[in-house]
Amino acid sequence: MITETDCRDLDRQDPLGFVRDRFDLADGVIYLDGNSLGPPVRAVRQRIAKLADDWQSMLIRGWWDAGWVDLPRRVGDLIAPLIGAAPGSVVCTDSTSINLYKAVVAAAQLVEGDILTDSGNFPSDLYVLGSVAELLDRQLRIVEPSQVVEALGPGILSITQVDFRSGRRHDLEAITARAHEVGAVTVWDLSHSAGAMPIDLEKHRVEMAVGCGYKYLNGGPGSPAFIYLRPDLDVANPINGWFSHHTPFDFDPAYVPATGSDRMRSGTPHVISMAVMEAAMSAFDGVAMEAIRAKSEALTSTFIELVSDLGEVLTPRETKDRGSQVSLRIEGAEQMIDDLIRQRIIGDYRPPNVARFGFAPLYVGFTDVWNAASAIREWRQRAPGR
Amino acid sequence: MITETDCRDLDRQDPLGFVRDRFDLADGVIYLDGNSLGPPVRAVRQRIAKLADDWQSMLIRGWWDAGWVDLPRRVGDLIAPLIGAAPGSVVCTDSTSINLYKAVVAAAQLVEGDILTDSGNFPSDLYVLGSVAELLDRQLRIVEPSQVVEALGPGILSITQVDFRSGRRHDLEAITARAHEVGAVTVWDLSHSAGAMPIDLEKHRVEMAVGCGYKYLNGGPGSPAFIYLRPDLDVANPINGWFSHHTPFDFDPAYVPATGSDRMRSGTPHVISMAVMEAAMSAFDGVAMEAIRAKSEALTSTFIELVSDLGEVLTPRETKDRGSQVSLRIEGAEQMIDDLIRQRIIGDYRPPNVARFGFAPLYVGFTDVWNAASAIREWRQRAPGR
Repeated sequence: MITETDCRDLDRQDPLGFVRDRFDLADGVIYLDGNSLGPPVRAVRQRIAKLADDWQSMLIRGWWDAGWVDLPRRVGDLIAPLIGAAPGSVVCTDSTSINLYKAVVAAAQLVEGDILTDSGNFPSDLYVLGSVAELLDRQLRIVEPSQVVEALGPGILSITQVDFRSGRRHDLEAITARAHEVGAVTVWDLSHSAGAMPIDLEKHRVEMAVGCGYKYLNGGPGSPAFIYLRPDLDVANPINGWFSHHTPFDFDPAYVPATGSDRMRSGTPHVISMAVMEAAMSAFDGVAMEAIRAKSEALTSTFIELVSDLGEVLTPRETKDRGSQVSLRIEGAEQMIDDLIRQRIIGDYRPPNVARFGFAPLYVGFTDVWNAASAIREWRQRAPGR
Repeated sequence: MITETDCRDLDRQDPLGFVRDRFDLADGVIYLDGNSLGPPVRAVRQRIAKLADDWQSMLIRGWWDAGWVDLPRRVGDLIAPLIGAAPGSVVCTDSTSINLYKAVVAAAQLVEGDILTDSGNFPSDLYVLGSVAELLDRQLRIVEPSQVVEALGPGILSITQVDFRSGRRHDLEAITARAHEVGAVTVWDLSHSAGAMPIDLEKHRVEMAVGCGYKYLNGGPGSPAFIYLRPDLDVANPINGWFSHHTPFDFDPAYVPATGSDRMRSGTPHVISMAVMEAAMSAFDGVAMEAIRAKSEALTSTFIELVSDLGEVLTPRETKDRGSQVSLRIEGAEQMIDDLIRQRIIGDYRPPNVARFGFAPLYVGFTDVWNAASAIREWRQRAPGR
């Protein structure tokens, strides 16, 4: 059984230990909800102040002199290496829902057939897919996550890599390979995985992917999302806007699409939110995704070992089958989460009776895991009738 | 002929004179490009700092404890009175392009027939309308702005109230009335008019409207846009997302739309940009749109009078036919604008040879108009061969 001393030793040996100081987390807070909203990176405050200064002093010239016009491309190119994408193939724009809509409607240009998804997807993604299915008059098939491979056929596959409820992870490589064998085009939602593990979009020839900026990428509340388009694909954006035009500032009445993923943009980028996102991405400077994944596996394994007698672990025990969070079914989970929050150990609650804990390797340590598990054990012992 | 003394007197008597101090404009800057990007309102810096503090201290709880979750509704309700809309009928969300797409696809649920627009529309709107026309297999008819009334028939009318090139203003009341007579559904883009003049959407029974937040609303670069949905209309949002769900945080696998304009939202709101937008709206506190329009007419009339011998005024001479900007065709306009900018008089240039000057009544005064016109006159006299 792992001990507190072991956890301290693991923290001392942690090759990512230096990264925590890049985050502006209050002393004593153990933040295990970065899978919902990442905390602020210290560089953000300075970036926000600069944005305000630039807006005040440059006014309209800020678009060029402060580089606002290139933000979607710059931020996209910062995200690209985290998900195994080439420069130019990822752009930061809009929200995950809007990007998913654009990607799936674009995917429908490449293939006939149904839209396949699973019940482990984000509800928001299911709503978007419902919208697309109705619009394009295609059938939306929703199967159990374990049935996806079996259910695959010619058409569009749109699923989320890591289930936000259980932390279960799909095998992106195997499913994408199988999809291609049967003539399906893939659109992956990486919202719960980008920034928490290596992803090899280009290597696995994923057609399109989307993801959000405010979870493991720490881009701030409602930060703009991203979209990946495989460089060899020639698809049209279903929502052309001036920022997806080849030369937006020419105000050309005729539409000429931009190249690469830039063609998947639409209207004016949300500069202020996107500048924050750019600053937040500096937390990944010099950090290998393999190191992040190694630590993530160790953190989640440690936590599972420490809490497995305290409730039902809903997250797969095999490390390869999970993301960077652990979900624990435990009676009174809602009250427990409230109690932990009072102790500044922040996880979250999902009905019925599920406590969720995200372990973001950039700022969570092994002692944090120990303390969180200890607090759960103490709560369990204190709770009446348990 | 109007004199410098007249302009000083007009400034002294200006009932909106007190508003300028709400803006963080550098001393000596005459900013005549607020039709492209409004300047920062002073309240913005404090709001950004509060946002950063809340994110740092509340983390995920900021959604509720800092009121992020209600931002789209709160900001929508701040915009509503400026455009003659009831509380709940306007929501702040996404970009103008995305909102226009949603509005026009929703309008197509109400009526068969072509999509009519005019060549005075924003190029970005033309691109979006082209996307919708292709998607829905409807004809997109683009006519001259003066031909709109004549060209109206059953179908969708989607035009922009004020032309960003010339400042020409459509008669929203008359065109909407005529549209309804012939069985057309209207989608107005108010990007160049919201915040610069009274608009009576509800009174004129406009079906849907969209507009941007970063021009006369001063919401900051790429601020989120807005969408208006007439309260009695029952249309489906073509891009359902979790924030258009009746109860987003229930994570309901089944989609149940929100009521009112909230149903036109999609994904997670861009909180940071939207918080800035909320602070910016405080510039309108206690200011009547009628007073803004009266000053706008006086500013543009004064400018036109002062420059009409210096170039070709492309903006209509009749006040009722124009918005809050004046466009002047003048040889060497690009060099002239560069020269004015060096004197801290900021307008902008559009090829070929058009100088544009926006007169935002909240922070532009009559002495500013005098000084800008004088600088143009001096440049004209200095310019070789003129």
